[in-house]
Amino acid sequence: MAIIRRELEPILANVVEASPFVFTAGAIADDLSLDVAGQAREAFRDLDKFLALCGSSKSHILSATIWLSDIRLRDKMNPAWLAWVDPTNLPARACVEGKMADAECLFEIQVIASKGR
Amino acid sequence: MAIIRRELEPILANVVEASPFVFTAGAIADDLSLDVAGQAREAFRDLDKFLALCGSSKSHILSATIWLSDIRLRDKMNPAWLAWVDPTNLPARACVEGKMADAECLFEIQVIASKGR
Amino acid sequence: MAIIRRELEPILANVVEASPFVFTAGAIADDLSLDVAGQAREAFRDLDKFLALCGSSKSHILSATIWLSDIRLRDKMNPAWLAWVDPTNLPARACVEGKMADAECLFEIQVIASKGR
Repeated sequence: MAIIRRELEPILANVVEASPFVFTAGAIADDLSLDVAGQAREAFRDLDKFLALCGSSKSHILSATIWLSDIRLRDKMNPAWLAWVDPTNLPARACVEGKMADAECLFEIQVIASKGR
Repeated sequence: MAIIRRELEPILANVVEASPFVFTAGAIADDLSLDVAGQAREAFRDLDKFLALCGSSKSHILSATIWLSDIRLRDKMNPAWLAWVDPTNLPARACVEGKMADAECLFEIQVIASKGR
Repeated sequence: MAIIRRELEPILANVVEASPFVFTAGAIADDLSLDVAGQAREAFRDLDKFLALCGSSKSHILSATIWLSDIRLRDKMNPAWLAWVDPTNLPARACVEGKMADAECLFEIQVIASKGR
């Protein structure tokens, strides 16, 4: 099986391709001064880019795990989620509370997608 | 690859089939007034239903992630887990603390399974 | 699809093989008196063993989820991670806070890998 690791950082690959699936690292916003919806939008934009590099897309997400620094932010995050996901191809999703490495980080998402084909 | 998304809710699919695997959303109890064992049993019942829709079952679970609102509930949850899982086909499991969207929610589980065949 | 479950404990399998992928349970240290780097090293040693049983290895990890009992331990854990991972085959990784079953447990990791070939 060919495994392709892309968007390398010193400690991780942001996306790993192992046909027919694509696995992402936890994606967070670049600008952690944003509110949770803004942070989610930035993380989604990164996911779009990482998935595209593998011939995948948000329409091909199978499973998503979302962490919020405070679970009460969920209602403020969900509209950003709904504006981003493909409504005809909704992922299976779990969303729980979990603090992230930076205390300002409110949102993190890790997904498994399929390759577009 | 054919991707089939079932049991749709407004923001997610409860189960997504992408042969040869099946990915579920986080499953929680309907009745959040139950204790953790009761909530786990309700979530397992939902998983049974979702997996069956994809030709899979609890005997085909590969990986499970469980979140408890308070990790000290683990000992009260485990008997419900043991009563539910197929003892000849135990999943790989991680169980950690993580608050869920509803403050009454004590238990959530997300799994990856294989198709029965 | 042949599913092989190995290193069985009473409530879970430590590793489940479902070609072309391998799924591990949450791995933790045996000696919970160690600091976070020491606990991580023990968990990695277990992962090495479990992956080898399936013809896989740390070089074949696709996705890793790490939980820390206190996210501020991340900087103390990362050197152990970097000393362990294959730098030419970095996994996609998410690392969040989440308490584990034993209050002394500081580190847990669950991975999805590919089979060696």
